[in-house]
Amino acid sequence: MELDYSSIEVIGFDADDTLWVNETYFRDTEAKFASLLDQYETKNKIDQELFKKEMENLPLFGYGIKGFILSMIETAIELSNSTIAPKLIQEIITYGKEMIHHPVELLDGVEAILEILSKHYRLIVLTKGDLLDQERKLRQSNLEHYFHHVEVMSDKKAKNYKDLLDHLEIDPKHFLMVGNSLKSDVLPLLEIGAQAVHIPFHTTWAHEVITPKKEDKYLQLNHIMELENYLK
Amino acid sequence: MELDYSSIEVIGFDADDTLWVNETYFRDTEAKFASLLDQYETKNKIDQELFKKEMENLPLFGYGIKGFILSMIETAIELSNSTIAPKLIQEIITYGKEMIHHPVELLDGVEAILEILSKHYRLIVLTKGDLLDQERKLRQSNLEHYFHHVEVMSDKKAKNYKDLLDHLEIDPKHFLMVGNSLKSDVLPLLEIGAQAVHIPFHTTWAHEVITPKKEDKYLQLNHIMELENYLK
Repeated sequence: MELDYSSIEVIGFDADDTLWVNETYFRDTEAKFASLLDQYETKNKIDQELFKKEMENLPLFGYGIKGFILSMIETAIELSNSTIAPKLIQEIITYGKEMIHHPVELLDGVEAILEILSKHYRLIVLTKGDLLDQERKLRQSNLEHYFHHVEVMSDKKAKNYKDLLDHLEIDPKHFLMVGNSLKSDVLPLLEIGAQAVHIPFHTTWAHEVITPKKEDKYLQLNHIMELENYLK
Repeated sequence: MELDYSSIEVIGFDADDTLWVNETYFRDTEAKFASLLDQYETKNKIDQELFKKEMENLPLFGYGIKGFILSMIETAIELSNSTIAPKLIQEIITYGKEMIHHPVELLDGVEAILEILSKHYRLIVLTKGDLLDQERKLRQSNLEHYFHHVEVMSDKKAKNYKDLLDHLEIDPKHFLMVGNSLKSDVLPLLEIGAQAVHIPFHTTWAHEVITPKKEDKYLQLNHIMELENYLK
């Protein structure tokens, strides 16, 4: 692979499932949600219907926990033919509040690699999701001081990255993005002439799953600490 | 009043109820919500309980329509002693979706004054609320090209403004904020040494109501076009 990082000046990090655990809590909540509705449908069907509802609501609600709660409520009403007990709907809202309250769990090696890289590069965070949630997690993470800029993005398509890098006056040639989602953190960056490193997390939301093309040139690592081997 | 705007270089605009209508839709939805629950309680009591629930949820959900929908659902479940029909909960979610879909209505004079001021000042938007909603409204408004920067803030306290102006490298001495909320758009700015103009909207959310102190120095206007008389 002809990957050369000598021109890199700014490194962008995705946050959820790159710096800290996130997807796991959604999967756990989906499991609780399926148990709550087990009188109506199989877990498999409930998962499918919830995902369909999330995709339907995504343009309206965007990413984040509040939209997820609303999609669970709508799915519960539909799957129960509008017979679900209101107490169970309150239970669903409580699941969501527990997610919001969940303490931040940093992924292994994150603080150490930020400490190293921050000496040589300008580091920024580029994350999707709910503004308030992401600010809260960043504060709890105690990682804020490593970053020159934090941007909560409503979406992570090539155009979103292009506009943002323009606004921050960062030339894509000097930019490297690090994240767990091929679809959101890697491929759009290659499209705009930046570079990207993919560090898969063990769990990926179905909406983020994508198959890269053979010509897509990016580095894949198993662990964030391995960045040290490729960057000065 | 010893207000002098000769040092102003950057003007920040609040968005909701300063550039376009917002609070009106919340009041309309509250009226529909109260009608939906009229078998359980008076409109007055329903309004009060909803407001209490919104305040309780604010630290978790932040500002915006999604949190408002969730607070309406929780209020409906509580006020009905968990007997509300799931179809009515779906109805509440539909109210929220209608709010999100509502076309942007610019306030009178907004485009004209931005056109004038943009020739002499750097204009930015500083708004609270949901990231996706605010981006959508800005896009629909066709006002985007007047602004050098748009920031969706999770809150509008003095510290939030201070941090943001620091980050944007704007000296508070050169900054003037324009908005409809004394609490969010005016007083925090005076606190950090910036200036502010208050342009009341006919409807103010109870959470934003505040009484200014006698020594608070700011300009109050009836109409956004009057800015022209005070700025070059």
